[in-house]
Amino acid sequence: MTDFQRTLLTGAAGELGTQLRKSGTKLGKTVRLSALTPFDDLAPHEEDTPADLADFDAVSEAVKGCDAIIHMGGQGLEGPWQKVLDSNIIGSYNVYEAARRHGVKRIIYASSVHAIGYYERTETIDANVPTRPDSLYGVSKTFTENLARYYFDKFAIESACIRIGSCFAEPTDRRHLITWLSYRDCRQLVEKALAAPRVGFMVAYGMSNNSEAFWDNRSAAVLGYKPQDSADDYREKVLAKTKQGDPNDPAVRFQGGSFCAAGHYEDEHK
Amino acid sequence: MTDFQRTLLTGAAGELGTQLRKSGTKLGKTVRLSALTPFDDLAPHEEDTPADLADFDAVSEAVKGCDAIIHMGGQGLEGPWQKVLDSNIIGSYNVYEAARRHGVKRIIYASSVHAIGYYERTETIDANVPTRPDSLYGVSKTFTENLARYYFDKFAIESACIRIGSCFAEPTDRRHLITWLSYRDCRQLVEKALAAPRVGFMVAYGMSNNSEAFWDNRSAAVLGYKPQDSADDYREKVLAKTKQGDPNDPAVRFQGGSFCAAGHYEDEHK
Amino acid sequence: MTDFQRTLLTGAAGELGTQLRKSGTKLGKTVRLSALTPFDDLAPHEEDTPADLADFDAVSEAVKGCDAIIHMGGQGLEGPWQKVLDSNIIGSYNVYEAARRHGVKRIIYASSVHAIGYYERTETIDANVPTRPDSLYGVSKTFTENLARYYFDKFAIESACIRIGSCFAEPTDRRHLITWLSYRDCRQLVEKALAAPRVGFMVAYGMSNNSEAFWDNRSAAVLGYKPQDSADDYREKVLAKTKQGDPNDPAVRFQGGSFCAAGHYEDEHK
Amino acid sequence: MTDFQRTLLTGAAGELGTQLRKSGTKLGKTVRLSALTPFDDLAPHEEDTPADLADFDAVSEAVKGCDAIIHMGGQGLEGPWQKVLDSNIIGSYNVYEAARRHGVKRIIYASSVHAIGYYERTETIDANVPTRPDSLYGVSKTFTENLARYYFDKFAIESACIRIGSCFAEPTDRRHLITWLSYRDCRQLVEKALAAPRVGFMVAYGMSNNSEAFWDNRSAAVLGYKPQDSADDYREKVLAKTKQGDPNDPAVRFQGGSFCAAGHYEDEHK
Amino acid sequence: MTDFQRTLLTGAAGELGTQLRKSGTKLGKTVRLSALTPFDDLAPHEEDTPADLADFDAVSEAVKGCDAIIHMGGQGLEGPWQKVLDSNIIGSYNVYEAARRHGVKRIIYASSVHAIGYYERTETIDANVPTRPDSLYGVSKTFTENLARYYFDKFAIESACIRIGSCFAEPTDRRHLITWLSYRDCRQLVEKALAAPRVGFMVAYGMSNNSEAFWDNRSAAVLGYKPQDSADDYREKVLAKTKQGDPNDPAVRFQGGSFCAAGHYEDEHK
Amino acid sequence: MTDFQRTLLTGAAGELGTQLRKSGTKLGKTVRLSALTPFDDLAPHEEDTPADLADFDAVSEAVKGCDAIIHMGGQGLEGPWQKVLDSNIIGSYNVYEAARRHGVKRIIYASSVHAIGYYERTETIDANVPTRPDSLYGVSKTFTENLARYYFDKFAIESACIRIGSCFAEPTDRRHLITWLSYRDCRQLVEKALAAPRVGFMVAYGMSNNSEAFWDNRSAAVLGYKPQDSADDYREKVLAKTKQGDPNDPAVRFQGGSFCAAGHYEDEHK
Repeated sequence: MTDFQRTLLTGAAGELGTQLRKSGTKLGKTVRLSALTPFDDLAPHEEDTPADLADFDAVSEAVKGCDAIIHMGGQGLEGPWQKVLDSNIIGSYNVYEAARRHGVKRIIYASSVHAIGYYERTETIDANVPTRPDSLYGVSKTFTENLARYYFDKFAIESACIRIGSCFAEPTDRRHLITWLSYRDCRQLVEKALAAPRVGFMVAYGMSNNSEAFWDNRSAAVLGYKPQDSADDYREKVLAKTKQGDPNDPAVRFQGGSFCAAGHYEDEHK
Repeated sequence: MTDFQRTLLTGAAGELGTQLRKSGTKLGKTVRLSALTPFDDLAPHEEDTPADLADFDAVSEAVKGCDAIIHMGGQGLEGPWQKVLDSNIIGSYNVYEAARRHGVKRIIYASSVHAIGYYERTETIDANVPTRPDSLYGVSKTFTENLARYYFDKFAIESACIRIGSCFAEPTDRRHLITWLSYRDCRQLVEKALAAPRVGFMVAYGMSNNSEAFWDNRSAAVLGYKPQDSADDYREKVLAKTKQGDPNDPAVRFQGGSFCAAGHYEDEHK
Repeated sequence: MTDFQRTLLTGAAGELGTQLRKSGTKLGKTVRLSALTPFDDLAPHEEDTPADLADFDAVSEAVKGCDAIIHMGGQGLEGPWQKVLDSNIIGSYNVYEAARRHGVKRIIYASSVHAIGYYERTETIDANVPTRPDSLYGVSKTFTENLARYYFDKFAIESACIRIGSCFAEPTDRRHLITWLSYRDCRQLVEKALAAPRVGFMVAYGMSNNSEAFWDNRSAAVLGYKPQDSADDYREKVLAKTKQGDPNDPAVRFQGGSFCAAGHYEDEHK
Repeated sequence: MTDFQRTLLTGAAGELGTQLRKSGTKLGKTVRLSALTPFDDLAPHEEDTPADLADFDAVSEAVKGCDAIIHMGGQGLEGPWQKVLDSNIIGSYNVYEAARRHGVKRIIYASSVHAIGYYERTETIDANVPTRPDSLYGVSKTFTENLARYYFDKFAIESACIRIGSCFAEPTDRRHLITWLSYRDCRQLVEKALAAPRVGFMVAYGMSNNSEAFWDNRSAAVLGYKPQDSADDYREKVLAKTKQGDPNDPAVRFQGGSFCAAGHYEDEHK
Repeated sequence: MTDFQRTLLTGAAGELGTQLRKSGTKLGKTVRLSALTPFDDLAPHEEDTPADLADFDAVSEAVKGCDAIIHMGGQGLEGPWQKVLDSNIIGSYNVYEAARRHGVKRIIYASSVHAIGYYERTETIDANVPTRPDSLYGVSKTFTENLARYYFDKFAIESACIRIGSCFAEPTDRRHLITWLSYRDCRQLVEKALAAPRVGFMVAYGMSNNSEAFWDNRSAAVLGYKPQDSADDYREKVLAKTKQGDPNDPAVRFQGGSFCAAGHYEDEHK
Repeated sequence: MTDFQRTLLTGAAGELGTQLRKSGTKLGKTVRLSALTPFDDLAPHEEDTPADLADFDAVSEAVKGCDAIIHMGGQGLEGPWQKVLDSNIIGSYNVYEAARRHGVKRIIYASSVHAIGYYERTETIDANVPTRPDSLYGVSKTFTENLARYYFDKFAIESACIRIGSCFAEPTDRRHLITWLSYRDCRQLVEKALAAPRVGFMVAYGMSNNSEAFWDNRSAAVLGYKPQDSADDYREKVLAKTKQGDPNDPAVRFQGGSFCAAGHYEDEHK
């Protein structure tokens, strides 16, 4: 479905990376995997170029020869500042700057609900609201969204930033009934962002067809995204296993969930 | 589905109250019914405390011991000012103030399309537009919505105000093809507003899955409301039995329908 | 400047009423004063008709023969529910309904900042935002605004609702530097609302030309309101006499000031 | 479904006109066809009155006796200015002015995506955005929308302007996956715009139930429009036959497609 | 202040054209006047090329050699359709198409309040609201605004469309207290629109510094427009000479004034 | 005017820092200066604590004992990534995290027009639009704004982020006629942001009272900011010395000026 010749997948050894590999050549005629270490299970259409995202030369080597990037790599949840800085801030800069130097045309970026986690759960927001990160991790996601906007406005490198809700095998808590993104729907979003004739710079929300929703995901409509899964199918099971939360608990009140209830990482991990 | 221990249902003898009783323990572990007179058909999970809404002490007695209220009571359509005042203004104050004194956490309030009845039928409105009541009844609904907002902002008592369209057994006129809310969908809305982890202060529209729509009901999405019925199923029948209206008739032009065409109640009922 | 023949001024014995009397025939060729008791200082263009706002027949008598009303009467700050109910809810209904029966064309209504008091001080709001009252008094102001909207939409009685900030001789606390409305500017607003060819239903904010502002008062521009006074002239004096508040105190955080910090009136006045 | 007595269909010999004739008496008890030449296949409920749209007297004759008009006639794509002027500007004026003189109550007008063709494909727009025509043809569509607005505001002639995307037997290029309107859905839109109790002045988008979308079509909801077809059913076929476009090609970048990539008609057709 | 070499002024013999000539070389190093007949009072920096706007060849001759146009020509108020068509629709097309052929870079267009005349006087509107013309004249103004938008989006010819309120020597009725644009301020607007580094496509309102206002004229701010005159200086005089209107008169209710109260020109001028 | 006890001024040796020192005790009872090296001209109310912003321990030492920070330090224009990273990203983190650990209550942050530089000059934007940085420097400004939002939402540290336009002794190019902020007005903005009872998290634009404007600076109104200087006073001088730009030059087209026309820093400084 896409005409890209060679697509780099960063974070290819992570959970999302592993799921995305299942999309095969829908990601590109050749898919180049990148993680800290080499892969021993490459498919015929796959190749790999290990790289530490914090190392510009390694990233540049991985990007060279690609015309598209799916940037899933980096620190995937709150962590110490140095880790967030190296993986998500320096790492994203390395990816975008290497993309510019090597003529990459489009980047699909795994942004996060935590870029807007401090909106109240009862607010319906679209992709244009001011960001309200709920963690240093969330701040790093807003950094990369802004970086992507800059590289598009100045250098015409397209970016689709997908603010992923909760991408797991199945929803396990009540907030997931809103934010869940199935692996299959995640793959569809990425595939369609690669197949679309034009994405320019866009931000979309990554959620399945859940009845509960606090996102107006109209920006995803231009991709033709049509989720096939729904957290509704797990609703009874989740309700049975969990209790109704306290509405004044920040983890219940805000869209970012437990990230909003947590203190500063360094305080909590001394 | 809800963890509330005891939920008071006002207006329990009315049509909507009667329908809501069918939800059983989905409304609360114990459901306390309140109407002007006692009930003789209490289910095991039900109890009753008769009260005239205009009588603060009686309302306070009914509220005592409850942690949630479904406030369906009061005058349900246009009437003389004194009646609207007693039942819907003084009555609502009594319910909210009793709730504050007795530690109630959440109230589901039966607001109405008549709170915004003077919007044109060709305007799509969401729950944030300025209110435009079409009757003294409608004014009383806006009064309670504001009261609910106040009790949330100052005292943290949550309220979900549902602006009910036309809640009947089935749609019988052409405007109902837009505004109809089936009994089943009404129950679902109330059940989900009780089950939601947090509702804060919110306003949602009460309509079924009708193709014709002038409401952007996104605020209901956070509840996971997914209507199961549709006025579309009655469309042919309704069209056959009724005539196309005059587009300049206020009853046709405005969302509130015949309420907008009526004069002042006192003039018309001398 | 106005062509109205006889204008009723309710609350004519109150502070604002007293100030407005200085406008003389700019309010109407004849100005009829109304308060609980008669006046002994009537000017040649003045007459009086005492009335308790809660008494419909008395109000009707006062309204009879007038073509405009300046409705300043009622409870002017938070009080017990019964007082707010009688003076501001029943009282406003009596004024509007009497106006309808006697053919009044336009009403200028003294609404209040307390109708939107729970907006944060750092939010700039215009006259179309959803109301957020900070007191039962504020709720009663939203009640009358909705009543006015209804009487305009259905009966074409025009209303200009002026959400008065802090109308005093001079600003005395730091919040007044934002909300102050001088007596002179208050008179101008009322005079211009009477002189305007059409006001329809409108809401405007009553503030002087203060540099500090959290209101976008564009709706007042159609009246040609051009404030002549400014709280800035009192700034140094006010800053010298007062301390910088605690930003987390509700009285500092919200636009309604101390009304937002107060508990329920009945609790605090036992 | 409609109560209109006699409906004039202009452009009745064109592709859309031919499709709409299949709606039979859903368009009106009598349907009067109008084209440059007479029809030889009239159904029992049909009659015809040939007219050149640029000829006021002929148009007036065709309009006389009708209470509704479906205005599909005129130049259907970019052409020389003189042709656009005669058919779409003078032609539309003739239709609306004849409608006024003969008491027509409602007009359904075939507007076009080319009225807003210069919005980027990644922007989601509703029916209230400022127009951005992509051709002289598109400018003529905005002319008629404004004319319709004027005739409604001043003379109360209702108009539903439908901005038709790509109305063909099936989608044949990738942009059609977004803009396709099936013949069946086109008929439904027109039928419902005739059956609705009130349309006032409204603009709606004419698209089928396609997953890819850049239009927020909420204004069509008041008509109860529920598309039955979807370009999704042709997606695999279209993707297989076409290549992913260049995102910087104006035909790919903008909603108007190839109209945006074309130069001035007169330059290109010397 | 402007670097344009030769600026064409259409409608140079009209009232606005005559006033604009006073700006001298602020309009361009050479100013070419165009009207139906030659001028006999040319200044040294002026030249003239008479042209009937409805005659493309004549317009083309007038445009040739110019890099900017101030398009003030055409029918300046409601008239018969044929006149509006010839002067304002065909005429504007001729101007823009000639501009394209001869490489003109920027056009200042005299649009009008009558392009949005059907907004209520109590509504504050900005330059992005949907147009609501109040006359065929007003429709022709929206036509040219759309044409200008098209020529910018496709051919990069810049246009500043100025919706002129009431440009007279002084305000003479109460509506002018809102809409008056002094000759001096009109000149300033045009001069600044020529001097600005970039205008792209923009719409601004042409009003002086009047206290009464129903326009949010922020789009004019980018030009640095700072009106020096105010209708306020004539307020007392105008109020003294005129009566307060009937708020239900369309001429009072709507921004377009008497244009909204008029019937169809052809009916009224038989 | 402020009640803060000890205010840290970072970047105290820079141009803005030097200007701000002139505000004296309006910044705090004690003002602690911080730069890379010590000061030899300390006033009685001043003290200093040199610190490299990239060194957390040094920053922490400088912050210790302060209750407010004016954060002017860091790289003040585009530079190599490593410099932007160290000074503006790591540096800002160090400042905010040190503030959290030492109980600082409010931070005034020098953000920049370059955080939104890619908006067109003809667009009027307010402080809520999505950011569109025009440089890595601009990206670093959006990073700190997001960081500030996070530290407020989670830790209640207030921040006023001032997007400074062009803060120089006087305007020297045509874009400065829009973006100029005089030193005096800059001081006023900072002083008022310190004196305000509450700033929460806010973004305001730093511009003087220039007639040309593309910013809706309403968020600054809550501070009572009333600029005393205007680029208008330099208009003639600037126009005389400079030429009208090419409207298609990115430096003319976009708000960020020459930053938008520049390529990547590393390319241009090899």
